Amino acid sequence: MSLPATIRGVYVIAPTPFHADGRVDDASLDRLTDFFVAAGVDGITLLGQLGEAPKMTHAEAVAIVRRVAARTRLPIIVGVSAPGFAAMRELTHDALAAGAGGVMIAPLPSLRTDDSIVGYYRQAVEAIGGDVPFVIQDYPLTFSVQMTPAVIRRIVAENASCVMLKHEDWPGLEKIAQLRAWERDGSLRHLAILTGNNALFLDFEMERGADGANTGYCFPDMLVDVVRLAAGGERDAAHDLFDAHLPLIRYEQQPGVGLAVRKYVLMRRGIIASDTLRTPRAPLTVAARAEVDYLLARLARRDPRARL
Amino acid sequence: MSLPATIRGVYVIAPTPFHADGRVDDASLDRLTDFFVAAGVDGITLLGQLGEAPKMTHAEAVAIVRRVAARTRLPIIVGVSAPGFAAMRELTHDALAAGAGGVMIAPLPSLRTDDSIVGYYRQAVEAIGGDVPFVIQDYPLTFSVQMTPAVIRRIVAENASCVMLKHEDWPGLEKIAQLRAWERDGSLRHLAILTGNNALFLDFEMERGADGANTGYCFPDMLVDVVRLAAGGERDAAHDLFDAHLPLIRYEQQPGVGLAVRKYVLMRRGIIASDTLRTPRAPLTVAARAEVDYLLARLARRDPRARL
Amino acid sequence: MSLPATIRGVYVIAPTPFHADGRVDDASLDRLTDFFVAAGVDGITLLGQLGEAPKMTHAEAVAIVRRVAARTRLPIIVGVSAPGFAAMRELTHDALAAGAGGVMIAPLPSLRTDDSIVGYYRQAVEAIGGDVPFVIQDYPLTFSVQMTPAVIRRIVAENASCVMLKHEDWPGLEKIAQLRAWERDGSLRHLAILTGNNALFLDFEMERGADGANTGYCFPDMLVDVVRLAAGGERDAAHDLFDAHLPLIRYEQQPGVGLAVRKYVLMRRGIIASDTLRTPRAPLTVAARAEVDYLLARLARRDPRARL
Amino acid sequence: MSLPATIRGVYVIAPTPFHADGRVDDASLDRLTDFFVAAGVDGITLLGQLGEAPKMTHAEAVAIVRRVAARTRLPIIVGVSAPGFAAMRELTHDALAAGAGGVMIAPLPSLRTDDSIVGYYRQAVEAIGGDVPFVIQDYPLTFSVQMTPAVIRRIVAENASCVMLKHEDWPGLEKIAQLRAWERDGSLRHLAILTGNNALFLDFEMERGADGANTGYCFPDMLVDVVRLAAGGERDAAHDLFDAHLPLIRYEQQPGVGLAVRKYVLMRRGIIASDTLRTPRAPLTVAARAEVDYLLARLARRDPRARL
Repeated sequence: MSLPATIRGVYVIAPTPFHADGRVDDASLDRLTDFFVAAGVDGITLLGQLGEAPKMTHAEAVAIVRRVAARTRLPIIVGVSAPGFAAMRELTHDALAAGAGGVMIAPLPSLRTDDSIVGYYRQAVEAIGGDVPFVIQDYPLTFSVQMTPAVIRRIVAENASCVMLKHEDWPGLEKIAQLRAWERDGSLRHLAILTGNNALFLDFEMERGADGANTGYCFPDMLVDVVRLAAGGERDAAHDLFDAHLPLIRYEQQPGVGLAVRKYVLMRRGIIASDTLRTPRAPLTVAARAEVDYLLARLARRDPRARL
Repeated sequence: MSLPATIRGVYVIAPTPFHADGRVDDASLDRLTDFFVAAGVDGITLLGQLGEAPKMTHAEAVAIVRRVAARTRLPIIVGVSAPGFAAMRELTHDALAAGAGGVMIAPLPSLRTDDSIVGYYRQAVEAIGGDVPFVIQDYPLTFSVQMTPAVIRRIVAENASCVMLKHEDWPGLEKIAQLRAWERDGSLRHLAILTGNNALFLDFEMERGADGANTGYCFPDMLVDVVRLAAGGERDAAHDLFDAHLPLIRYEQQPGVGLAVRKYVLMRRGIIASDTLRTPRAPLTVAARAEVDYLLARLARRDPRARL
Repeated sequence: MSLPATIRGVYVIAPTPFHADGRVDDASLDRLTDFFVAAGVDGITLLGQLGEAPKMTHAEAVAIVRRVAARTRLPIIVGVSAPGFAAMRELTHDALAAGAGGVMIAPLPSLRTDDSIVGYYRQAVEAIGGDVPFVIQDYPLTFSVQMTPAVIRRIVAENASCVMLKHEDWPGLEKIAQLRAWERDGSLRHLAILTGNNALFLDFEMERGADGANTGYCFPDMLVDVVRLAAGGERDAAHDLFDAHLPLIRYEQQPGVGLAVRKYVLMRRGIIASDTLRTPRAPLTVAARAEVDYLLARLARRDPRARL
Repeated sequence: MSLPATIRGVYVIAPTPFHADGRVDDASLDRLTDFFVAAGVDGITLLGQLGEAPKMTHAEAVAIVRRVAARTRLPIIVGVSAPGFAAMRELTHDALAAGAGGVMIAPLPSLRTDDSIVGYYRQAVEAIGGDVPFVIQDYPLTFSVQMTPAVIRRIVAENASCVMLKHEDWPGLEKIAQLRAWERDGSLRHLAILTGNNALFLDFEMERGADGANTGYCFPDMLVDVVRLAAGGERDAAHDLFDAHLPLIRYEQQPGVGLAVRKYVLMRRGIIASDTLRTPRAPLTVAARAEVDYLLARLARRDPRARL
């Protein structure tokens, strides 16, 4: 389905479920899709970093998009970041044909100067086509590329097909504030801002002007609630719910091991059958699983969805 | 005072208080020292990254050590990381003469291979003298140097004067577990492990075998309590107190802006007179101050020390 | 054709010729292949960094391998470095089916510790299969990964299918010497070492124990001569020829713009029809072309092959 | 002596001579100063990266400036790059008092965005004082900071005290051309550009508009000749002399080991008594020394200054 004119709410980053032997688990993927719909998310992002995109072949990637698009009418965004434009173009074309409404593009890790970042997005848009809605992924911790608000404004100004910023700079609150100030003074057109970083700052990001979340925390249903409460002005309630989850959010946000935590909880919630990751992976130790169990037990006292 | 044979508990990272015009504020430094003593910390680390060490002249740095050492009998560790060994040697010598019991050394950011990291510490020890107790600062996020547990073991084995690991790898729980397993199997002598990262994982770090905290969170009195509770086996109580602080811990842990948060809260607590930072600095915006105030107000419902 | 038991001599890094509109230029690719054969090279490496590999689709990449393999009986090595193992496995399988004799694998740029580099090659071999001959690409300037000689020795010891080191560390002479010393003392089995870096140190690399060159300098016929002279003990003659080319070697070795220089000279030599690069590219300015022309004119006084 | 209104010619980067035991060797420093004067250089840069600046104490650094300034009337520039502005301010003040005419400042390695680089130089000028002539050191290979021509233009426009660019970007020819084009169109005031990188591209840099060299190659007398020939329009003669030295230039330009080569040749030329480096160092192996000797013997056939 095509993306809405104005993106907002929760676009959940979907993990890719595997069987214990590493094959894509279609039944779990279907359950996961249904779970996202039931949780009330507004869209789904497939094949992001935490969807283990680089570990999949082109054919596998396209099959996943096709399967999810066939099961839900929710808009779908597909990560198409690649070391070269040929692969990016090919995956974009095939993902759209399979039912995606837009794509997400991270900068090449080697980019350094403002001009080279802006130029990269210009070339990427030439490669995929100026009619394909795209999302800027601003994630310096992983990609080593730092985009100032002014660089984002230049990319947005140059490319009419830029529809959203996946914001996961850290610290990032002032960046949201600056972009919104420019929107108010007319120097930047409206840009959807959905935040990542496993929602570690979602409470304040919403208050600073974010339109929602674009992350994959193992309780996307909680993200939906926090975004709704914050958008509705129920500040304390939003923070109360958020704070209850923060110990687990923080635990899941650890680089590398975080995805294993996420899959483990989704498995314990009965949504995916196995928490298998493809190689290279950082598996959970026995001690780590026990820590997650403890965090879930503590969370269950304040959020019944954690009673597993 | 010299360092104890076995380091444990809370070694607080002290910020350096400045007047609004940037001069070192001695009166605030005295109040800060007294506050640390009253809070029950076990030691003080001066001139770490968040002590704004690179912004001070050699003479200023030594004067700070002398002043704090004159006011308390707590053991003092001084950060002496430097781009070259001449400055490191000089500051070490003068800091010890001024009353420090040991020094902390971070690796040069350009180090890459295991051998070059181990070699660097060997050369550093040659430079400062093999009789000076030193702490390894393992902080990949800031220094871009990744030390495996095996590298730490090699450094400890080579240098009898290595007395402690300031652990702030991220993720880092398995690293503590590995080092403790080696201690149990006899392949590593006992090494004090105190954790940093603004205490973001202190709850579980204590359970994995850490001996305490070596960080500067604006409520070091809470760190003392959590370390005591955890060491005493009161798991739920430790987590309850920790979780109450986690929203603020997380806020203060933001790179760059975090130190401004820390100084702002210490000022609001009446401990330092001004939250001034020296250039280069990331000052708190009005919006950020209001967010910290809100977090303090929420925290005050669960910890009366936050009622300001 | 399968790789020989002992690799030595010149394995030329082939650029990928494009038409002015960016399509692969098959006729130029054929001429290039024939030129390499006539120049006396011992093998061809396709789809390396300077073969613009990331700018090609999987189908294009495989077609290039198939075309070159159909035209020559020289052994072919194919670059299969990829952000994930799925794509690496797929390209390896298809390249071998198309006629390649082995593959070249660079480390992921994010790898830091010794263990993680060794582990990466272990996983890569699991992915492509332990029976596929592979080359380690050791190019820190581009990949930001530093492999000590000891790390290379571990990779070689663990993986019987490792047949060669593409050496382009800088500085790198002592690394060759160390590996050869270990070969002599029996702690490392024989490993073919062919050097890259646009041959900037080929003169001394041969004297330190390299088996040849694995680079793409625009006069591979000169590389063949230098390797032959050096292997035959004609030291002064090797240096005389090398030094005549050094001003151009140095000019072509510039990061980014170097490939445009290489293609420009190959075009001027009548081997490829166009010096087009795919996006992103650093095209030659008018001034730079004039500088290359001047260097060629000067070189022609000492090497008639440069008379164009 | 104060810097001239217009800087041009050769500003040689001076190594710091040490006795075998690591103490500064004053007699060698005097001989080195005299040699530079006799070689016809236009100025001297002390305490740059290859002057082993980070390995010296503040007192040693100032003493070196004082000694050289007392021996020659040549203008002196002093490297004052430091992790913090307090040390930078202090060294600047003391270096000027000791006789320096200006300072050289490299960006902090952690700087990433255009704005943060420009902001850093603004703060540095605030720290050292707006009346102190300063040189921008643009050396991405060592400092990991990439400055576009536009960033350099902003720094120059903001800071009237910016008197020179030490250019050692790689590739860098187009950067010189761009800056000179802006000078011609009036959008940039005249800026002295002296080039580094061990002179590896000095031949063409002069033709693109450089004003001279600011590097430390072991034959600064050759740099003087090449700059003079190029400035006088004797293109072929400049290249002939340059090409004769290129094999050694290239050898000395190797990161890390290069400084040992430079000191070894200066020792063999009888200018400094010992080629000792302070720790950390990359000493020359026996094989490397023999290679340098061979290069010198070959060079001596074309430049009698290499007959040692």
